[in-house]
Amino acid sequence: MTEQDHIVATAHAMADAARAAILPHFRSKGLEADTKSDLLFDPVTVADREAEAAMRAVLAERRPQDAILGEEMGLTTGTSGITWVLDPIDGTRAFLCGTPSWGILIAAGGPEGPEFGLIDQPYIGERFEGGFGIARMTGPLGERALATRPARPLEQALLMTTFPEVGTAEDETAFRRVAAQVRLVRYGMDCYAYALLAAGHIDLVIEAGLHPYDIQGPMAVILAAGGVVTDWTGGPAAQGGRILAAANPQVHAAAMALLNA
Amino acid sequence: MTEQDHIVATAHAMADAARAAILPHFRSKGLEADTKSDLLFDPVTVADREAEAAMRAVLAERRPQDAILGEEMGLTTGTSGITWVLDPIDGTRAFLCGTPSWGILIAAGGPEGPEFGLIDQPYIGERFEGGFGIARMTGPLGERALATRPARPLEQALLMTTFPEVGTAEDETAFRRVAAQVRLVRYGMDCYAYALLAAGHIDLVIEAGLHPYDIQGPMAVILAAGGVVTDWTGGPAAQGGRILAAANPQVHAAAMALLNA
Repeated sequence: MTEQDHIVATAHAMADAARAAILPHFRSKGLEADTKSDLLFDPVTVADREAEAAMRAVLAERRPQDAILGEEMGLTTGTSGITWVLDPIDGTRAFLCGTPSWGILIAAGGPEGPEFGLIDQPYIGERFEGGFGIARMTGPLGERALATRPARPLEQALLMTTFPEVGTAEDETAFRRVAAQVRLVRYGMDCYAYALLAAGHIDLVIEAGLHPYDIQGPMAVILAAGGVVTDWTGGPAAQGGRILAAANPQVHAAAMALLNA
Repeated sequence: MTEQDHIVATAHAMADAARAAILPHFRSKGLEADTKSDLLFDPVTVADREAEAAMRAVLAERRPQDAILGEEMGLTTGTSGITWVLDPIDGTRAFLCGTPSWGILIAAGGPEGPEFGLIDQPYIGERFEGGFGIARMTGPLGERALATRPARPLEQALLMTTFPEVGTAEDETAFRRVAAQVRLVRYGMDCYAYALLAAGHIDLVIEAGLHPYDIQGPMAVILAAGGVVTDWTGGPAAQGGRILAAANPQVHAAAMALLNA
């Protein structure tokens, strides 16, 4: 098995372990969220922590030399040069509401950013993956190749973001300049929006205030499917912040021009 | 078979037929939407029409004496006193984006409104049904009873609506009074929000501008699960318009007071 194959197989084993940890808690009675910070709306569930522990256990067994950055348990250093970036439940608010738009996000890469990534939605049974020459999804209808959609004029584009307020007031104003020009804006999809972009269904995802673990998994999937992921100024996206994910360079350029107008 | 059992069995056969008609079009390449009105954002797909035709074919064979009100093909009169109210794809914008929050909505009832209803999400493989003593869902995790959640203070409530603008400017202002008091507002779920309410995951759904076929199926499911569905003034909801769907009478009253403040 090549090193790349080993990383891919490990990522799938991690996603399987996280699924098993999370699904018994999804839509369960008495689901309780606590808060890990002063933000009232940042619920962290038991499922979140158990899933990260399950993924870390897989890494400890299979690839103990790799570094890990996890949403729940922070940074674990490594010696291999490979870092895994994990969000066990991206979209905890959706999870609380029973909405299957949350996902397990996994990325593996080096100092340049993610080289392989995965978005998994356990309840629907969908997994989107990209990197090392792979760009595919599996789900209720079987396996499909992932490919972002070809360019079309901005006024025909479908745009997603999770929260209508997007980020700061300034962020929202910039977002509204793009929103005013596209065909349709949809909200509330969390990481699932990035999966829909990678699968060729929508043209743009624009968000702000993201952490590295929110974007590195989706970023690898979208890049592998032919898309473009940068910050709002066209710079690197791997550290999060304000993210512009686009199906192709044309719609990326059109949206970026309006974000910075 | 009792009359009620016959209606339930017919509704399931209709949902099965609609699933088969729609799924080949969901996330297909070259999905094209046209418009049935001057509204740019009211796409009607081939799938929408084929699904209503498939449901009508089931009724023509099994219950030709019933009336039908369908989103796509209008009103067909009947002689039995039973009217079927059908929305083959509620959430066509979600459908266009590849988001599995659209659904097949089916209701059957008399002049007082829906007595049995069903919300079906074919891609996830979920079906929520209620009426004639039934309140249950089937999905990826098997079968579960549906029951709305018990009362909790409004500041702990989870609220959903599909579009941030809700309806008219006045509607939005009223909605914002409720939104400002709840724990969390989520957008973009279409009819799936009503399913989440019936299943006990969220507390409130508030929408405006609905048609009878948008609400009658969900309404029957929510009522059977113990919820309350009215217009914003507490009046009948079956004809659509401004809808307040609530998990229990307490949260319904709290939200209605703010809508009309």
